[in-house]
Amino acid sequence: MPGLWRRTISKELTEVDALLRTQTGSSNEELDEMTRYVFDTHGKHIRPSLCILSFLACGGKDSRDAVAAGAAIEIIHNASLIHDDINDGGTMRRGRRTLHKEYSITKAIVAGDFLLAQGFSILGSSSPAVVDSIVKAASGMAESEFMQDSVERSVDVSEDEYMEIITGKTAMLMMASVSIGASLAGADPKVHDSLVAYTEAVGKAFQIIDDTLDVVGNAELTGKRVGLDILEGKPTLPLILAIRDPKRGPRIKEVFSSPEPSMEDVCEVLALIVETGAVERCKEIASKMVDDAVHYLDVLEASAYKDAFLALSRHMVERDR
Amino acid sequence: MPGLWRRTISKELTEVDALLRTQTGSSNEELDEMTRYVFDTHGKHIRPSLCILSFLACGGKDSRDAVAAGAAIEIIHNASLIHDDINDGGTMRRGRRTLHKEYSITKAIVAGDFLLAQGFSILGSSSPAVVDSIVKAASGMAESEFMQDSVERSVDVSEDEYMEIITGKTAMLMMASVSIGASLAGADPKVHDSLVAYTEAVGKAFQIIDDTLDVVGNAELTGKRVGLDILEGKPTLPLILAIRDPKRGPRIKEVFSSPEPSMEDVCEVLALIVETGAVERCKEIASKMVDDAVHYLDVLEASAYKDAFLALSRHMVERDR
Repeated sequence: MPGLWRRTISKELTEVDALLRTQTGSSNEELDEMTRYVFDTHGKHIRPSLCILSFLACGGKDSRDAVAAGAAIEIIHNASLIHDDINDGGTMRRGRRTLHKEYSITKAIVAGDFLLAQGFSILGSSSPAVVDSIVKAASGMAESEFMQDSVERSVDVSEDEYMEIITGKTAMLMMASVSIGASLAGADPKVHDSLVAYTEAVGKAFQIIDDTLDVVGNAELTGKRVGLDILEGKPTLPLILAIRDPKRGPRIKEVFSSPEPSMEDVCEVLALIVETGAVERCKEIASKMVDDAVHYLDVLEASAYKDAFLALSRHMVERDR
Repeated sequence: MPGLWRRTISKELTEVDALLRTQTGSSNEELDEMTRYVFDTHGKHIRPSLCILSFLACGGKDSRDAVAAGAAIEIIHNASLIHDDINDGGTMRRGRRTLHKEYSITKAIVAGDFLLAQGFSILGSSSPAVVDSIVKAASGMAESEFMQDSVERSVDVSEDEYMEIITGKTAMLMMASVSIGASLAGADPKVHDSLVAYTEAVGKAFQIIDDTLDVVGNAELTGKRVGLDILEGKPTLPLILAIRDPKRGPRIKEVFSSPEPSMEDVCEVLALIVETGAVERCKEIASKMVDDAVHYLDVLEASAYKDAFLALSRHMVERDR
């Protein structure tokens, strides 16, 4: 039932969509067209949902500020995806050409900057604490991007290093979303910190699942090609675990550490990773991570919003796209 | 006497420098090295100076917030330069290789995003009005970049279109600097608006002079090669005026509108532009622009800060680098 959480806040998500349209417009025709290109392909709005649901689950009433913050976070998230796609040479996103492929790298850099500024603009009318938490996430994203670069094609990455990278890359912006929602609701610091701790686990689990989809995903569902992480030399958890397989590990290592693996080699490695059972183990690790963290939610009183929050986090680690 | 304004606020500029170092550090070694690379080559700190001097000239006392805002603006300015250099294929800045040449395009994109976030971070603890004015400038920069792209190699650009481009590209961030300084000092709205109007003229004049330096600048002083605007097909005021010359215009047009002019052709065009007297006319236009706007400063009471503010704006339009 991936729809439960969405139904619970359908009104708010419609308002987020409206803000995404109105707040990213530009008087420059081409820039305006580019931002519409980005927001016409409806994303899953996971971050705005986290923000709004944590606001409501913490007893927040008038959700206008949480909706605005959610939209701002979604805009900043998309700005970072645009620049990430340039950096990773990504060609497909949400089933369509990436922005820099559809337009040009230089235009996509500027469009990303423009969206970053628009996102901060919405947040700017909020409290310094809100701005601070989003900026911390943005810095974390940049730093993890560097960390990821520094271990490119490396076969010696530890699980700890991997966890540090995905925390900055993915979990921090989700933690910021929840932190902002809870803060706007005036949540008790203990409640706030518990929600953020829970979301750290969910965010990391989300990225682990994302990394398994690069091995076994259905391109038609995910909207992007599989095997890209291997091709680009990004050490992900499925790879880190599979490398330890005594029989298949050496061949996986060989291909992964070679400077320009062929598509055939990458496909072979994907099959080998699956054979080691690494994908299943990743799913178990992700599930356990969220299960172990679920006690953090005890601080929340029972409510439809708490249920929806739980449903959303379950969806995040059980998705196939 | 380019030093007068700098001496008047030397203490504040030292504090700006300290903030630039402390606020742009990262625990990631390479990212940290890159930000130091950017801020080790001391820029002229024109924008922080505008912010601090307008604060002081408006009667502001405790300059800490103006110093912090000035540093934030300088960080955001440098972030935009990093991305601009990628977009323009710039190889030299301040006498050194541009960041993306020294490292890589992908790393420079992320470093720019990181700095943008750090800049907003400092501003976030300020008022929504401050954030708003900087975001407006950042959006203006992005939009003018698109406008500039759309007239690449065009020989039909009007002076009005050129003025619109340089307003977004250069004047708006300077206007934001002054606006923030005046706001932090609690200036009367009339005083605030007058200072901003004055700075619009100074900012545009500054860019006009910058564009003449691309024609006649001394690469050793400016730290960048000459002729880049022609090479990249950017219609600047010297070019727009020179094209109207009945004798030399046709050849200038021919080279400028050709898809990939040779370096020889570009050098020939630079000489032709000088021969038309366009560079002198640009300097006159820039001077007149500032002279015509100087009455806006009547709203300020006489003070050493007002004198320094005037000296700074004079320096901005009389510089040779």
